[in-house]
Amino acid sequence: MPSLIRDRATSTPAMLAVFGDEALLRAALTFEAMLARAQAEIGLIPASAADAIAAACVELPDIEILADEAAHAGTLAIPLVAMIRERINDPEINLHVHKGATSQDLADTALMLQAKAGAALVVEETLRLTSALVALAERHVAAPMLGRTLLQGALPITFGLKVAGWLQGIDGALSRFRRETAAIQLQLGGATGSLAGLGGQARAVTEHLAALLDLPAAETPWHSRREGLAGLASSLAILTGAVGKIAGDIALLAQNEVAEAFEPRVAGRGGSSAMAHKRNPTGCQVALTAATRAPHLAATIVSTLPQAHERGLGGWQAEAPVLADLFQLAHGALSAMAPVVEGLDVDTDRMARNLTAAGVGTDTGESEALVTRALAHHRKDR
Amino acid sequence: MPSLIRDRATSTPAMLAVFGDEALLRAALTFEAMLARAQAEIGLIPASAADAIAAACVELPDIEILADEAAHAGTLAIPLVAMIRERINDPEINLHVHKGATSQDLADTALMLQAKAGAALVVEETLRLTSALVALAERHVAAPMLGRTLLQGALPITFGLKVAGWLQGIDGALSRFRRETAAIQLQLGGATGSLAGLGGQARAVTEHLAALLDLPAAETPWHSRREGLAGLASSLAILTGAVGKIAGDIALLAQNEVAEAFEPRVAGRGGSSAMAHKRNPTGCQVALTAATRAPHLAATIVSTLPQAHERGLGGWQAEAPVLADLFQLAHGALSAMAPVVEGLDVDTDRMARNLTAAGVGTDTGESEALVTRALAHHRKDR
Amino acid sequence: MPSLIRDRATSTPAMLAVFGDEALLRAALTFEAMLARAQAEIGLIPASAADAIAAACVELPDIEILADEAAHAGTLAIPLVAMIRERINDPEINLHVHKGATSQDLADTALMLQAKAGAALVVEETLRLTSALVALAERHVAAPMLGRTLLQGALPITFGLKVAGWLQGIDGALSRFRRETAAIQLQLGGATGSLAGLGGQARAVTEHLAALLDLPAAETPWHSRREGLAGLASSLAILTGAVGKIAGDIALLAQNEVAEAFEPRVAGRGGSSAMAHKRNPTGCQVALTAATRAPHLAATIVSTLPQAHERGLGGWQAEAPVLADLFQLAHGALSAMAPVVEGLDVDTDRMARNLTAAGVGTDTGESEALVTRALAHHRKDR
Amino acid sequence: MPSLIRDRATSTPAMLAVFGDEALLRAALTFEAMLARAQAEIGLIPASAADAIAAACVELPDIEILADEAAHAGTLAIPLVAMIRERINDPEINLHVHKGATSQDLADTALMLQAKAGAALVVEETLRLTSALVALAERHVAAPMLGRTLLQGALPITFGLKVAGWLQGIDGALSRFRRETAAIQLQLGGATGSLAGLGGQARAVTEHLAALLDLPAAETPWHSRREGLAGLASSLAILTGAVGKIAGDIALLAQNEVAEAFEPRVAGRGGSSAMAHKRNPTGCQVALTAATRAPHLAATIVSTLPQAHERGLGGWQAEAPVLADLFQLAHGALSAMAPVVEGLDVDTDRMARNLTAAGVGTDTGESEALVTRALAHHRKDR
Repeated sequence: MPSLIRDRATSTPAMLAVFGDEALLRAALTFEAMLARAQAEIGLIPASAADAIAAACVELPDIEILADEAAHAGTLAIPLVAMIRERINDPEINLHVHKGATSQDLADTALMLQAKAGAALVVEETLRLTSALVALAERHVAAPMLGRTLLQGALPITFGLKVAGWLQGIDGALSRFRRETAAIQLQLGGATGSLAGLGGQARAVTEHLAALLDLPAAETPWHSRREGLAGLASSLAILTGAVGKIAGDIALLAQNEVAEAFEPRVAGRGGSSAMAHKRNPTGCQVALTAATRAPHLAATIVSTLPQAHERGLGGWQAEAPVLADLFQLAHGALSAMAPVVEGLDVDTDRMARNLTAAGVGTDTGESEALVTRALAHHRKDR
Repeated sequence: MPSLIRDRATSTPAMLAVFGDEALLRAALTFEAMLARAQAEIGLIPASAADAIAAACVELPDIEILADEAAHAGTLAIPLVAMIRERINDPEINLHVHKGATSQDLADTALMLQAKAGAALVVEETLRLTSALVALAERHVAAPMLGRTLLQGALPITFGLKVAGWLQGIDGALSRFRRETAAIQLQLGGATGSLAGLGGQARAVTEHLAALLDLPAAETPWHSRREGLAGLASSLAILTGAVGKIAGDIALLAQNEVAEAFEPRVAGRGGSSAMAHKRNPTGCQVALTAATRAPHLAATIVSTLPQAHERGLGGWQAEAPVLADLFQLAHGALSAMAPVVEGLDVDTDRMARNLTAAGVGTDTGESEALVTRALAHHRKDR
Repeated sequence: MPSLIRDRATSTPAMLAVFGDEALLRAALTFEAMLARAQAEIGLIPASAADAIAAACVELPDIEILADEAAHAGTLAIPLVAMIRERINDPEINLHVHKGATSQDLADTALMLQAKAGAALVVEETLRLTSALVALAERHVAAPMLGRTLLQGALPITFGLKVAGWLQGIDGALSRFRRETAAIQLQLGGATGSLAGLGGQARAVTEHLAALLDLPAAETPWHSRREGLAGLASSLAILTGAVGKIAGDIALLAQNEVAEAFEPRVAGRGGSSAMAHKRNPTGCQVALTAATRAPHLAATIVSTLPQAHERGLGGWQAEAPVLADLFQLAHGALSAMAPVVEGLDVDTDRMARNLTAAGVGTDTGESEALVTRALAHHRKDR
Repeated sequence: MPSLIRDRATSTPAMLAVFGDEALLRAALTFEAMLARAQAEIGLIPASAADAIAAACVELPDIEILADEAAHAGTLAIPLVAMIRERINDPEINLHVHKGATSQDLADTALMLQAKAGAALVVEETLRLTSALVALAERHVAAPMLGRTLLQGALPITFGLKVAGWLQGIDGALSRFRRETAAIQLQLGGATGSLAGLGGQARAVTEHLAALLDLPAAETPWHSRREGLAGLASSLAILTGAVGKIAGDIALLAQNEVAEAFEPRVAGRGGSSAMAHKRNPTGCQVALTAATRAPHLAATIVSTLPQAHERGLGGWQAEAPVLADLFQLAHGALSAMAPVVEGLDVDTDRMARNLTAAGVGTDTGESEALVTRALAHHRKDR
């Protein structure tokens, strides 16, 4: 999907930049530069070679040309390493470029550097959303409304209870996502994951490189062991779904005939090209779109787990664009809904009237105590 | 899929029993009996009523009749509660049946009791598999073979390194699955999750009931907050995929022209109805089938996260059969592959010959050290 | 999912029978009997052998024992053919049993016989639904109501226009399903699809067998060419989704605050175990559950298309239970919604009041003309 | 996924252009210009107004600015229509801009114009692939090789039979795709699909607009009736899977130990950044990656079928980027495999030796006759 218009409809400039070409190339070149640096630090290659390699990794190449070359070669590493060697133009030093590494080391590590930056954005925006949910739950802890089950009016709750449920869903999803970010690790295995070609000092190289890149060192190479990525992808889809739950509820509450809560009015947002009177739930639209797509994207990555032998064919190559989509959709959904929750236009009078109209009494049970429990759990969990 | 033949092709009698009708009804009736018991323990209802209710929950109903009634009613709880009341046949006591609970409380808690039993089977079989993998990795820690990438011969590894990678994949997937079983919790929320109808003593009822059912009490009801289930489902799919990775590799190694490893010979297994000479990788077939289906099943549950309001329509009702399928497929895959790994017929001579034929030298790099690292990590992790 | 309770919640007794064990075994035995008959008809084997084989294919075996044996063998054909041979107990005749066929010939043809029966049920129930939709659209061709977009009140339409849209969605989905049933063909290829072992008379055997089984003969064997099945599966998911669209709309219209249409009252259906006043949209629940699951099931079958070589490992073995689920869910959804549409409780006064309340005028545009177009197209299409 | 590098790894420049921003904006502006023209043709608006509108639709806007504005508004139509009106800067004429149309009319029609161009590319490249398959099947109609089932050597076939199976899979998938392109139709419904606001001349406007855009006119607006799109998406995934089948087989044949067929040598393609000796199946990699992703993308679109009311929230907004991905992946897979099949490096001697080594005789059954049948069917089908 090379369409900025379609990308921007679903994600944020910040996350699109994290998974953009410049960031990818910057990450890939950093991998090569730091790989040499790490090897120099432990004496595997001369420091001057590492300097020369690092110097050749500063300037970004022409993206269109490189994209064509990588597509032709079947992997980004080949034209990128060739470019570095051409820039260095010294056969001696060039022996030290990409030494002990394989294409997938570069591809995976670059992806992980992008994922790390993406994860920081996701966490930040999720915390913004949970702060807004806490405030909303506290404000309406006792506001009675009609509880609805199977899309039918049921018995009373408070609006605070509904919001506390949203909060807990996000909390649980954020905890999972944070755990799964443990999969964001350095990849360094060499051609077949045996770490040959590093002079028997593979662990030292790995640890130095990990420190230089500020990524955790993996216990062992994970070229065809991808359950960590599958867990990360799944956790992003679940987080997106938890945001979608909020969006779905708000969109239902905003129906004309229900009219209990509305997205905040934002100039130029939510209008209709045909109907001036409309106030469309545009933030909810973004989040529901993301929640529709994300489960299928996560399943794509889970379905690639049986990758053949030491490095597979067609499986891991499917992961990077899909993981990028997941980060982009998650951040798009969070960024759409955080301001909606912050500025939610709640009509507690209408809630009360709808409840009365339903004729199911006023007993909100232990709604308030449950909100208190949820908020206490949220504070402990952070 | 009401076909035992098709079910048995993909799962085990033990797991099929866990998710069978008898187990479901037993769990559902236990929920009702213990709900009354818990309320009696804290004085909400008379002990004699709890006794009468428990007595009415002993005998299983006719499954065909109940299945029809539940389908007609739209929920299992309605005919089951009606049956209990009919058996008690005392209007006074009948007021205490299902008190404070809703259909989904019964459905979710019964599902969780089944999931708990299913999880124990999954963990047990996974540990069996990892034990076999440890032994296999140790035995072949130094056995050289051709490493293969993109389905092409690459550079040497040891067979131990390949097996250690399988082990780590399973270890990681098992850790995730165990974490996600935290979602297996009691459900008790009443009609709209407000815990009305329990005389203001909902927390006490919840905790007593949780203790009686030996399920953790949830912080708050989770009728339309399903990220825990989505995480559990995803972790089962990922575990199944990690098993599928082993199966895929073994099937590739067992090709006639590669001939490096074979499923153990088992009388009557892996034959062909047309070719007497064949030795089909039947265990791998089961695991690969499961790994093909599981990601889509997990995605089904992730896609239902935006469930409407206090209890949704069509979303959570889709979960139970899909979660059952996931448990069944995971256990089927594990049970098929554990004996395959235990009895794997490894031809290290052929491995050596294939490696020589590839002409890529004999440097297995740090394969042995990596196996040691992986085994140490496995021991620490347990 | 060996649970009748869960199966009945999502499908009908008729479709469950079509994909049940008895039907599967009957189909498999019929394949073997007719395979012999076809070979006898063209003189490949003695008529007396065909008679003996047919006689041995009459009685169904014990399902539990056979399910265990098939699971152990890795294929249904092995124990079934062994059973037939044991019954015949004549080495001479036994040479003619399963002659020229392979396990997958039996498995695929049995599945196709089941699919053919299933397709007839699906078409019948879809036509029942479209008849009800035609009547409903005609009845309300001019009934004004609020059109809603992005879950917000927009401009007026007529209820007839909404129903006509439902009808067209079903019409389009039914046309596709009927086209895709062309994939329901005899499978006969022998071990590797070369049709060896039939004395050079494979086409004659194929055509006779096809006639005896009343299945179309495939152009060539399709053991690892599965796009027809993938198309059939996709068309079932799309049909189920088109039914889900109706269910989703009706559930939204039935919300207390909208109250424009309701499922018909059926004694004992749609009640709540906790709230006597509720009238849950139970038919919609069944259809939405099906529409949630079906896309993932279809994707499972599409994802197995790259099956290895002449007959794959793990791919086609995943198809049968998934295709069964798709037929079952589609029929469950159709059977749930046909009576809902037939007996839909429409409140045109409330529609008019909600429209007035929205304050968007009364211009229903060309709604009526569009209904007329849609109905004309429907009649032509049949 | 705003990464050209990642896009080019999976698709072609031609298809990326079809779904790029310029093409999208060109299509959207053409819709607006031709909508005015159509209305002028039947006298609904002055010809001079149509001229002015068309003139304002010539120059493309700044893509970055428009992408931001569309993301803010929640729909592309709002800033685009605003831009047109600003360019015209005449209140009188501006009343005629976008007259009778709604945002989704513009979005859907633009998508359909892109889909039409994309479909032409898909058909063209598929025909290139089938031509190559025909030639390959003819060349090797009688070349004996080992047939393989369940990844085990089975009985002999000819290579021609294998290739004929690939051909038939593509043929079937292409037929389906062509049928499903019938869904590529003009969308014009106005705010709620009632075609209000077109002076009672909606059909005439629709037909004139359809002719001007060279798109079929839909029977009625299809804003929330999306089974056609779901069918188109499914057919693309199935076609991609049929290509993936070829890729999977070739990658298996190209394994060192099998060595029966290889991708053609292309300078700079299929190399390894770590191993100079390698010849990676890069075309197969592209196709298998696409076949991994496509089923999940198609399922995304099928899962959105239950879109609410007259135009949904979150469902149809998820379709366009996913459909673009499907076209891009399909074309990437086809374009990768067409030259692979054209130049396939087949080692019939090795095939013969592998067959002899398997010791399963030399009877290729009716392989040759089956190839003849398949080719005849292919010719008839075209």
